[in-house]
Amino acid sequence: MEQKKTRTEIKELGQFALIDTLTSNFRSTKEHTIKGVGDDAAVISISEDEAMLLSTDMMIEGIDFDLTYFPPKHLGYKVVTRGISDIVAMNAIPEQITISIGVSAKISVEVLRDFYQGVRFACEEAEVDLVGGDTSASVTGFVINITAVGRQKKNKISYRSGAKKNDLICLTGNLGAAYMGLRLLQRERYVLSGGAKIEPKFEGYEYLLEKYLKPRARYDVVDSLEELGLVPTSMIDVTDGLSSELLQIAKASSCGVRIYLDRIPLAKQTNALADEMNLNSVTAAMNGGEDYELIFTLPLEKREEILGIGQIDIIGHITDKEQGCVLVTSAGDEIKLEAQGFNN
Amino acid sequence: MEQKKTRTEIKELGQFALIDTLTSNFRSTKEHTIKGVGDDAAVISISEDEAMLLSTDMMIEGIDFDLTYFPPKHLGYKVVTRGISDIVAMNAIPEQITISIGVSAKISVEVLRDFYQGVRFACEEAEVDLVGGDTSASVTGFVINITAVGRQKKNKISYRSGAKKNDLICLTGNLGAAYMGLRLLQRERYVLSGGAKIEPKFEGYEYLLEKYLKPRARYDVVDSLEELGLVPTSMIDVTDGLSSELLQIAKASSCGVRIYLDRIPLAKQTNALADEMNLNSVTAAMNGGEDYELIFTLPLEKREEILGIGQIDIIGHITDKEQGCVLVTSAGDEIKLEAQGFNN
Repeated sequence: MEQKKTRTEIKELGQFALIDTLTSNFRSTKEHTIKGVGDDAAVISISEDEAMLLSTDMMIEGIDFDLTYFPPKHLGYKVVTRGISDIVAMNAIPEQITISIGVSAKISVEVLRDFYQGVRFACEEAEVDLVGGDTSASVTGFVINITAVGRQKKNKISYRSGAKKNDLICLTGNLGAAYMGLRLLQRERYVLSGGAKIEPKFEGYEYLLEKYLKPRARYDVVDSLEELGLVPTSMIDVTDGLSSELLQIAKASSCGVRIYLDRIPLAKQTNALADEMNLNSVTAAMNGGEDYELIFTLPLEKREEILGIGQIDIIGHITDKEQGCVLVTSAGDEIKLEAQGFNN
Repeated sequence: MEQKKTRTEIKELGQFALIDTLTSNFRSTKEHTIKGVGDDAAVISISEDEAMLLSTDMMIEGIDFDLTYFPPKHLGYKVVTRGISDIVAMNAIPEQITISIGVSAKISVEVLRDFYQGVRFACEEAEVDLVGGDTSASVTGFVINITAVGRQKKNKISYRSGAKKNDLICLTGNLGAAYMGLRLLQRERYVLSGGAKIEPKFEGYEYLLEKYLKPRARYDVVDSLEELGLVPTSMIDVTDGLSSELLQIAKASSCGVRIYLDRIPLAKQTNALADEMNLNSVTAAMNGGEDYELIFTLPLEKREEILGIGQIDIIGHITDKEQGCVLVTSAGDEIKLEAQGFNN
């Protein structure tokens, strides 16, 4: 006898579809709510010309980080980066954070002290205040939630939805390094546990480790844009990989995206380790994530000004929705962009 | 050979000491941060006379709730209550929330749908907007973090630290009902699993179940105080039990507290079930927690106005710090207040 199916597995829907499904019938009713679910941060009006930005992120041990190779101090630093990067991705300045933690009995006070030392260091560096938190027991492992608050003039906030045809697609820094740092740590853990006969080797890959363990949010870019009087037509930070983020902009802005493979910036160490491990560094850039770099769009005529900022690459441009989202290879072939992440 | 001790267990310090230790060396530096760690919510200046309130709470399956007897819809409702109650406890009006969830493979999409139905119902009832969130996988069970945002005129915000000698200690509703509701559910689970020979019995205890499974934040009290032009000198919500909350006010306000046992309001059902289960209903009120009622203080001369609100009891008054925090029995004996909770 067949049973009627009454249980749907989360993996059948995927993360983005799940969030859409669960929050699709929520309507904002408060006059102060400018933007609710659907961007890097919510936007709340606080005066005629200013708004507050609000974002929240959860990180769970064994899923988002592994304490066997993630030093607690770096973890504290990285959690702050993850939180404030969402504010930065709206072209806004982070000012306050709160951190909630759930800790099981296996987590010692010393681990928590190291964790909060990292939090404190990141707060001082980014000039944000830790203003609250909550502590709970947990059944297994370490659970962290960060909420970040920022502020910006309403007419300077960049949403995902403002990209226009022919806008240039700009990218800060380089991509794939954080992912390669993770792969390096995973390999060395395997080596250290006796799973392979080779020696651990971190030399020459310090940059990759730093990009994975201690990435910095690009609030400096918000300052640079402010100095030049530029307000991106759209903006997002790279947490899930270039493909996924560009698809978010395309969806929110109802546009297409055309980027060029040979313009995607990769660090030397990213290429070197990818070669050594027989991996594809472009795949790391497209789908690796956790780079905390910024993708933003600006009108074509701002080209010279953008390049004047330094360490920013123009990797492509916005097209009509009908043209879809494509990566163009050196040979001129077009590859359709696809989102990775939670689904895989 | 003795080893130097390098690992401290969290239980050696206790939750409150832990939070104090971990965040004691954080200093707020932003001009907009009015109040950081140490109250129900952080306070951030948004204009000359107005501030935004920000609070965060984490709830973990198996610690804060048990899905074997907590229906997901009620859980969604209660999470919202927990979040916005922290804003209400500052005498402010909640306006927005964000909810992050961590879900393991055992949680189905249907459970999440029910959960968000409860969230939605509570949002509509309390007139708050869900404006963001995050979804993560989890190794075991269901993890929830709520962040709540509210707003209030700066001169109407009630901190824990403003209680003055001779102020009246006021309490909304009644206490201990949520704890007795939890005990009832635990007993019936035991019965249902065949652990006892008696029949499950909820009749006559519906109010207790509702107070535990679907408590409402007392934002109505903020409205009543506003109508009367009253601003409490201090305020806190009852999440950890009356003892613990009064000790928080005493600590923050550098004062003593004197409350009277026969003035502590208990519901009929609380007394009835306590009798039936051979429990002490006063202990449930003092240490049970999760009532989401409000404790606040007001000057002696406001006595008539307070009692005019209805369903508010004056349970004692503020004393000098040297007199400590005591509960006075009907016989006139004094019992020193002690905090329960995480430590036990």
